[in-house]
Amino acid sequence: MTSAKKPPTEIDFIQWIREHTPQLPENYVVGIGDDSAVVNTFGKTSVVITTDSVVEGVHFKPETEPYLAGRKAMARGLSDIAAMGVEPSFCVAAVCFGQNSSLRDAKAVYKGMRFIADKFNVKIIGGDVSNSGKNLFLINVTAIGLTRMKPVTRSGARDGDAILVTGALGGSILGRHLNFLPRIKEGLALNRKFKLHSMIDISDGLAADLGHILEESRCRGAVLYENAIPVSASAEKLARSTRRPVIEHCIYDGEDYELLFTASQQEARKILEWAKGRIKISVIGQIRNNKKGIFLGSGNRETELEKKGYRHTMRS
Amino acid sequence: MTSAKKPPTEIDFIQWIREHTPQLPENYVVGIGDDSAVVNTFGKTSVVITTDSVVEGVHFKPETEPYLAGRKAMARGLSDIAAMGVEPSFCVAAVCFGQNSSLRDAKAVYKGMRFIADKFNVKIIGGDVSNSGKNLFLINVTAIGLTRMKPVTRSGARDGDAILVTGALGGSILGRHLNFLPRIKEGLALNRKFKLHSMIDISDGLAADLGHILEESRCRGAVLYENAIPVSASAEKLARSTRRPVIEHCIYDGEDYELLFTASQQEARKILEWAKGRIKISVIGQIRNNKKGIFLGSGNRETELEKKGYRHTMRS
Repeated sequence: MTSAKKPPTEIDFIQWIREHTPQLPENYVVGIGDDSAVVNTFGKTSVVITTDSVVEGVHFKPETEPYLAGRKAMARGLSDIAAMGVEPSFCVAAVCFGQNSSLRDAKAVYKGMRFIADKFNVKIIGGDVSNSGKNLFLINVTAIGLTRMKPVTRSGARDGDAILVTGALGGSILGRHLNFLPRIKEGLALNRKFKLHSMIDISDGLAADLGHILEESRCRGAVLYENAIPVSASAEKLARSTRRPVIEHCIYDGEDYELLFTASQQEARKILEWAKGRIKISVIGQIRNNKKGIFLGSGNRETELEKKGYRHTMRS
Repeated sequence: MTSAKKPPTEIDFIQWIREHTPQLPENYVVGIGDDSAVVNTFGKTSVVITTDSVVEGVHFKPETEPYLAGRKAMARGLSDIAAMGVEPSFCVAAVCFGQNSSLRDAKAVYKGMRFIADKFNVKIIGGDVSNSGKNLFLINVTAIGLTRMKPVTRSGARDGDAILVTGALGGSILGRHLNFLPRIKEGLALNRKFKLHSMIDISDGLAADLGHILEESRCRGAVLYENAIPVSASAEKLARSTRRPVIEHCIYDGEDYELLFTASQQEARKILEWAKGRIKISVIGQIRNNKKGIFLGSGNRETELEKKGYRHTMRS
């Protein structure tokens, strides 16, 4: 079926929206196409805002504990604010329960959301509750950060930048995609102390999200250093059962929710120095405008990576 | 089945959440339980925020044009900001499409949202697109107003207050629930020019939403003047086919999205004077703490109203 026309994806739709969205006034600093949008208020405060849904059957299984679904929904929302190098301040949540949801499930969802919110001192200040009347359950979180700092966008990567990542990658499907902690303190500290050129949280997978940085920054290509990519224990475990090379899991698995960012080579050295004993941070590659696409370098060999990553599709 | 235990509703859940939500810091001026939440930023600006979902099969029919579903989702979100006497500034939207949604449907949803947003100069600055993979379609809008004004809450009604309403009520199911315009200019003008004690937008129905004001304001009761309640043409039309008294449609039908508010008797007279030739506003009743419940007054008779209104239910 390789000759069939691909169904349109969320990317097609979002691209169409961007083409049909009029230019925003100057106080709208970041609009559609980043982890969060940024609006300057009348004073020096910026509002950083993001909205994100987790859907039963897509982002969690029908048998997933409602507590973990709530936890994931909140953590994803906060992670999108963290990816701007900003601390989330408060949020609102909209939950659409399914026909079989019980009050007990509802409470568990709230407790899961609160666990993450409390951990990062984020206030849940409003919400909306509905019931689909069907076999569908969805949680939406809109998170907001109020800040006087300059948020880090996806669009500032420069040729020659070092590519860095927090933590270790791959295999989140074994459980981490539900119970991860968003990298809020790390994102805030990095933005406070260093000059980052671009940042994103890894949700579509390392290769796909690096692709988003390249696209938004209008950079042509990048090289990833195979031996430098930090491999998670779950990536290794998963590779043993899938029998695929572990590096594939690190590059293509989604939902790591680690921070992927770029900075000048000099700044990257300072970051690594500072990170020692504090946070696991690795330099894993370089932005390279003399290439087109993302390449995996190992020894003297460089292999171009396939473009893949999770995409919602819709009928054309 | 009157002896059977009632299934728990969204109200039970929200009540439980309120009991389990720790007190918010002082800069959180309005939390859970109003049309919108209000947060003071570092400066003089307040962030007024609300989140609201419209769900296929609940808030619109499966055969409803996606354009109208998008329009309704946006209008409802903005109406919740209007109900605070504040102008919405920007919003984010999260759409979960169904398995049969096409790119054409997606574009229509966006166009419907944009129609309302553009009309009130509200910017759509971010969003999230997913697909349920099932026969379910849902649109969530989180709307934000940035203001230096004091928002009007549900909780400030006082004994003796006049009860006022914009527009005419009832029969929205004949079409207005999809294509209404939120009362943004009216809410803003009323808050700017007058001292309102409380305000809400009518979504659950006149009686139910007046009940919300009473509850949040810790008032015991109110009287509505039957002859003063403004009857919409669609309420009259609907009453002809339902053969129910038209006043029932005005009192119990949901989704009027008119503003229901209270003010002192003196202020109410000023409001009516100002409204002449500008906005249809009616004084329809009075807050009365010497009563318990909501009564409908007609001539010398006062009848207590039933407590009813649309409620989502869930299993216990």
